Amino acid sequence: MPAYLPHPFDPLTSVEIELAIAIVKRAHGEVNFHVVSLQEPRKAQMTAWLADSQNVPRPDRVAEVVVIAAGGKVYEGLVDLSGPKITKWIQVHGAQPIITIEELSAVEHACRVDPTVIEQCGISGVPADEMHKVYCDPWTIGYDERFGSNVRLQQALMYYRPDVDNCQYQYPLDFCPIWNATEKKIIAIDVPKIRRPLRMNPPLEYHHLAVEKQGGYRTDLKPINITQPEGVSFKMSGTGREIEWQNWKFHIGFNYREGLVFNNITFNDKGNVRPIFYRMSLAEMVVPYGNPEHPHQRKHAFDLGEYGAGYLTNSLALGCDCKGSIHYLDAFMPTQAGGVRKVKNAICIHEEDDGILFKHTDFRDDSTIVTRARKLIVQQIFTAANYEYAVQWVFHQDGTIQPDIKLTGILNTYVMHEGEDTHGWGTEVSKGVNAHNHQHLFCLRINPNIDGQNNTVNMVDAMASDAPVGSPENFYGNAFYAKRTRLETTAQSMTDYNGATSRTWDMCNESVINSQSGKPVSYKIVSREVPGLLPKEGSLVWKRAGFARHAVHVTKYADDQLWPAGDHVPQTSGAPSHGLPEWIGDGTESIANTDIVLWHTFGITHFPAPEDFPVMPAEPITLLLRPRHFFTCNPVMDVPASYSITPSQVAAKGKGARDAADKVSELALGGCCRTKL
Amino acid sequence: MPAYLPHPFDPLTSVEIELAIAIVKRAHGEVNFHVVSLQEPRKAQMTAWLADSQNVPRPDRVAEVVVIAAGGKVYEGLVDLSGPKITKWIQVHGAQPIITIEELSAVEHACRVDPTVIEQCGISGVPADEMHKVYCDPWTIGYDERFGSNVRLQQALMYYRPDVDNCQYQYPLDFCPIWNATEKKIIAIDVPKIRRPLRMNPPLEYHHLAVEKQGGYRTDLKPINITQPEGVSFKMSGTGREIEWQNWKFHIGFNYREGLVFNNITFNDKGNVRPIFYRMSLAEMVVPYGNPEHPHQRKHAFDLGEYGAGYLTNSLALGCDCKGSIHYLDAFMPTQAGGVRKVKNAICIHEEDDGILFKHTDFRDDSTIVTRARKLIVQQIFTAANYEYAVQWVFHQDGTIQPDIKLTGILNTYVMHEGEDTHGWGTEVSKGVNAHNHQHLFCLRINPNIDGQNNTVNMVDAMASDAPVGSPENFYGNAFYAKRTRLETTAQSMTDYNGATSRTWDMCNESVINSQSGKPVSYKIVSREVPGLLPKEGSLVWKRAGFARHAVHVTKYADDQLWPAGDHVPQTSGAPSHGLPEWIGDGTESIANTDIVLWHTFGITHFPAPEDFPVMPAEPITLLLRPRHFFTCNPVMDVPASYSITPSQVAAKGKGARDAADKVSELALGGCCRTKL
Repeated sequence: MPAYLPHPFDPLTSVEIELAIAIVKRAHGEVNFHVVSLQEPRKAQMTAWLADSQNVPRPDRVAEVVVIAAGGKVYEGLVDLSGPKITKWIQVHGAQPIITIEELSAVEHACRVDPTVIEQCGISGVPADEMHKVYCDPWTIGYDERFGSNVRLQQALMYYRPDVDNCQYQYPLDFCPIWNATEKKIIAIDVPKIRRPLRMNPPLEYHHLAVEKQGGYRTDLKPINITQPEGVSFKMSGTGREIEWQNWKFHIGFNYREGLVFNNITFNDKGNVRPIFYRMSLAEMVVPYGNPEHPHQRKHAFDLGEYGAGYLTNSLALGCDCKGSIHYLDAFMPTQAGGVRKVKNAICIHEEDDGILFKHTDFRDDSTIVTRARKLIVQQIFTAANYEYAVQWVFHQDGTIQPDIKLTGILNTYVMHEGEDTHGWGTEVSKGVNAHNHQHLFCLRINPNIDGQNNTVNMVDAMASDAPVGSPENFYGNAFYAKRTRLETTAQSMTDYNGATSRTWDMCNESVINSQSGKPVSYKIVSREVPGLLPKEGSLVWKRAGFARHAVHVTKYADDQLWPAGDHVPQTSGAPSHGLPEWIGDGTESIANTDIVLWHTFGITHFPAPEDFPVMPAEPITLLLRPRHFFTCNPVMDVPASYSITPSQVAAKGKGARDAADKVSELALGGCCRTKL
Repeated sequence: MPAYLPHPFDPLTSVEIELAIAIVKRAHGEVNFHVVSLQEPRKAQMTAWLADSQNVPRPDRVAEVVVIAAGGKVYEGLVDLSGPKITKWIQVHGAQPIITIEELSAVEHACRVDPTVIEQCGISGVPADEMHKVYCDPWTIGYDERFGSNVRLQQALMYYRPDVDNCQYQYPLDFCPIWNATEKKIIAIDVPKIRRPLRMNPPLEYHHLAVEKQGGYRTDLKPINITQPEGVSFKMSGTGREIEWQNWKFHIGFNYREGLVFNNITFNDKGNVRPIFYRMSLAEMVVPYGNPEHPHQRKHAFDLGEYGAGYLTNSLALGCDCKGSIHYLDAFMPTQAGGVRKVKNAICIHEEDDGILFKHTDFRDDSTIVTRARKLIVQQIFTAANYEYAVQWVFHQDGTIQPDIKLTGILNTYVMHEGEDTHGWGTEVSKGVNAHNHQHLFCLRINPNIDGQNNTVNMVDAMASDAPVGSPENFYGNAFYAKRTRLETTAQSMTDYNGATSRTWDMCNESVINSQSGKPVSYKIVSREVPGLLPKEGSLVWKRAGFARHAVHVTKYADDQLWPAGDHVPQTSGAPSHGLPEWIGDGTESIANTDIVLWHTFGITHFPAPEDFPVMPAEPITLLLRPRHFFTCNPVMDVPASYSITPSQVAAKGKGARDAADKVSELALGGCCRTKL
């Protein structure tokens, strides 16, 4: 055991993962480990411990374990690490656990030596002696009704690289082998009716050697240096995973599936430490593609539930992924064979200047205040085959939390034959390369704790008054207001975005009233990238991705209701829909003034363009969680002003004014740029 | 005359303003100057000159002048500065020119000495000997049907300051004097039926003296230094107003009304200088308030047309409004009496690091590229009485332009009597202080020039296939596509935002086809803060702010169609609606494949909360203008990668990899934070 006690929210340490694996192996022999991860403490116990850690027993450390044993049998269990002992061990039928890196890595080699794949490559135009130039991105199969859920499958999206350094996504092949991960063999190949031979266009590359060949990098970009000579403004405390910054305090967790998890988010409001969120994370996502031609409908990865944002996370590099003064946290996860894999620098934490926090000048007397803002960014980046997701959780001084995701990486592509029409289901981003329309829909899971556990959600719409122009109540027709709809039951909670009313959702505590406004303390979700699920009602994706049917669902809190598309997502049929639709149930459960979870699905619809190829300039998606009626006034007035002068000080010719302008800033150019004639 | 020739797009120089004023005075005697500003060159001539400045005559410098002469007579004219001579001089009837700073400044003193105002102050609870503690924000009257358009009026929103250094917005008074600016007297006072006496709550202040009294500024914020030791990456050329940066080149103009104006925006695409926008600016805005009680309906300022974003612009301070290496441009404008006012540092220009530009890691071989992004920001900040607008125009390396506005400053407030209900038309942001609901609706004017002058707008909606689930065309129900609607006429161009379809608008050149995708080159408007005008159809605001009725209008380009709420905005009745509704006309004019102007109205609806008071943490609004099918591939692959390693280099243990990671970055904390137990 380690020489320190982990915080109950800490991810399993390397030693704890090893211990859990050893105990399982001792009891059940050699198995493939798909999950060895912290079972977060039961909330009731944890809440009691957080309130009084001196007297309440510290929650035990428990590992959740999912394995596949010989013959493809799936077991899930719990290992109490304090025992240590296995406290649960059950076989799971008809479900497939999350796919591991090792499973993904096995497929490509297998494809290269499979005779049926070699044959198809030949038809595409790749000779048998070039099979080492054939690559595949092994994807979750989604769900294929021909095979069901009991056989563990992946689909291999096929590519060719003339040279090992070529970007393969410009050379897609037109067929799709299906891999049985248990038997370790190709069991079928989906071949399109109309064949599309390999298109050997001149390569289009983004790496430095290619750019150098094309004339080299641009030379007119001068460095920007960002330094913090006095150190950073945040502190890590406890076991190194609790952060304190600008009145915020929270625990930074990490697991195989969601990646970053934030627990026990509080804000020190003038000495009063106020809880805001018990837990917050991205809990799921789905990326449906819009080309109806078989087998492209199988492209609708649940990147978290099927691969895991933790398993896929990048090791971040100083001065590349982040600039400035950066603090990193590592991550540890099991290997399939029962080892431990360390991802160094899995999480980066840093501050950035954030422009103007507030400013005002009085036109009549020139009194002025300018105060600059700072933000704290906790980031991970994960790679899901072709795509990269840079997930930033931005904390602002004013109490706003801003999940901010940048999409980059490479488009998923498919080959076109000469003269082929995309029929609008995709874009020819480069000659012969079809990038299909797709959506990225993320599910943000929030367990609010706004001044306490009993919270309520209101849907808020900006509405004109019903009273007509000319009526006594609205004579000039300018009346408008915020219409609030209290979401009483899980059924009523299933609500969609409405751009026309600038719809938002407030999470509030009706028992705590703002002393100034008389309104309940609340946090508002301001989210404007909410496209809605484009696969139709009753479609495969609609059935499997129940969470994506609405912008907001609310459920009553329950331990273990974490994964809105179900615990084991690969190869779910969607009949029935697991996860959120099950918890919504008959819709009658009350979600008002109780411990609730809000599930918010947001994202973008991406119609590709040549600009996105061969590597995509980052596309941003963001939303805000804003305190409204939470504070009794602007909570950042004590952030040091860069400049502040009152009217009386203006009258006294500046005497007593505060001038704390950043002295490192300088004028960029002299008076050098005006051409005399 | 100056020793250099201004660029034809340059704002009038100080010397030119003086010259124009002198010529007008010589011809017409003493008048009040409301406008002395560049009449931008006629487009036909300017386009010819831009194409061949060696052989085509340089467009003459012409000043637009608007004055008010004795008796309130309004004249508008043109002064050809090359003559110099007055080439146009006409009297304008029934219109009121833009309000000047001098007019605004006159009202407060007048209120303090007006007996009727003193009387009302007494009723409110301010004794006559405290009239020096009475303040007013003089606002445009909007339109008041009792007085019409021929009498020049303002309304005085009244406040009290117990001490000169108190924020007056926490002490609003309940009556509203009306000021005749021509006769310089109070001609009426609007008094509410139910009186609301002055509420003398303890002051809530944001300035440094108040914060120091409350315990002082927080001390845990460590400096962030941003430096560019090798200088900036942009160049100013010509007369110092053309900027070149990362393939962009454009002219930075500025006028009294719009503030920043961008002309002749081009992008150097591998040696091919491609035009994108001929002109771009914020052309108008309106801020309707939602309280129907008289006279609050008059609060719906057109901050650009009624006051001018140029006239109201701030002088920016190094290290306060911007950090890093900053270049400034000054602005010159006339005074009402015929002098010249210089605003030093009216515009700031700087670069910022912008996170990851693109990244990809190949999971199978660990080949990686990470490239960091840079952005260029051109900013002005203007103060409209209580509010501040920080308008940033952000240029990205990938061809994206991002207008980005931060709202800060102070809420407009009104007094509440004890126990009063806001009835939902506002919020009690502090005891006794009612901040009314309002919208900020901005009108972005774009004259596109995408690979040439003849452009077309398509409305684009993300749509599911019509074919049902199970049908041969959409068996799995996943099909979706971008539905394009070509806007053919001005009537068809009047389109609203649709959040459900993630609606965008493409400006394209149908004659220039992307060689890869086969689609017309285009720029897409991705704008998600598009609330729509909440004042009802037929209401006063609806009539006056024709531009705000729809998210998009498109008109055929015409010189001088610049101001979508009309040339002279103060006191327009909206019957008829000036500006855009006039240009839309009967709606039959073709706007396809011609020189067009797109008018985009976006913004936010603001329901105030205590967090916004007494000074508002900046609230962001942003949108993107993105190149789509404009480039044949990612246009930023030659931005120097921070790190790049190819698969063969990974195999060769890193030999040949590019490591240009920022070496100034550093680890924030040692291994100091883990508590041993």
